[in-house]
Amino acid sequence: MIQPIKLHVEGMTCGHCVKAVHDRVKAFDAVDEVDVHLETGEVDIEFDPEAVEIREIIAAIEDEGYKVKTF
Amino acid sequence: MIQPIKLHVEGMTCGHCVKAVHDRVKAFDAVDEVDVHLETGEVDIEFDPEAVEIREIIAAIEDEGYKVKTF
Repeated sequence: MIQPIKLHVEGMTCGHCVKAVHDRVKAFDAVDEVDVHLETGEVDIEFDPEAVEIREIIAAIEDEGYKVKTF
Repeated sequence: MIQPIKLHVEGMTCGHCVKAVHDRVKAFDAVDEVDVHLETGEVDIEFDPEAVEIREIIAAIEDEGYKVKTF
């Protein structure tokens, strides 16, 4: 079942950063939707928690060079 | 004959911006070297003014979404 989650990503400064985060998260088969908000740092994701763990998605975003908070 | 020029580019905020500007300028055959400094906005270019006009290089950088000053 698809579940929404909102992450808070620190360090995005421009449209390239938005695209880097979006494309990295969207690359997961288990991710349905990704919406990245540059000004607030909020990243809204709809994913299948039975197919991917959220910590894997967080690790991918951090691998792109950003810091992720889940609260 | 290769000639150096220093441009001042406004709006670069991250490493993606540096790469976008670098790669766009380096794509000119008449450009030998490009050195992009994120913190100062300075872009040092070595180019052949007989093969490309500096205004073409400036137009390419502005096409990437940045503002260029030559002073």
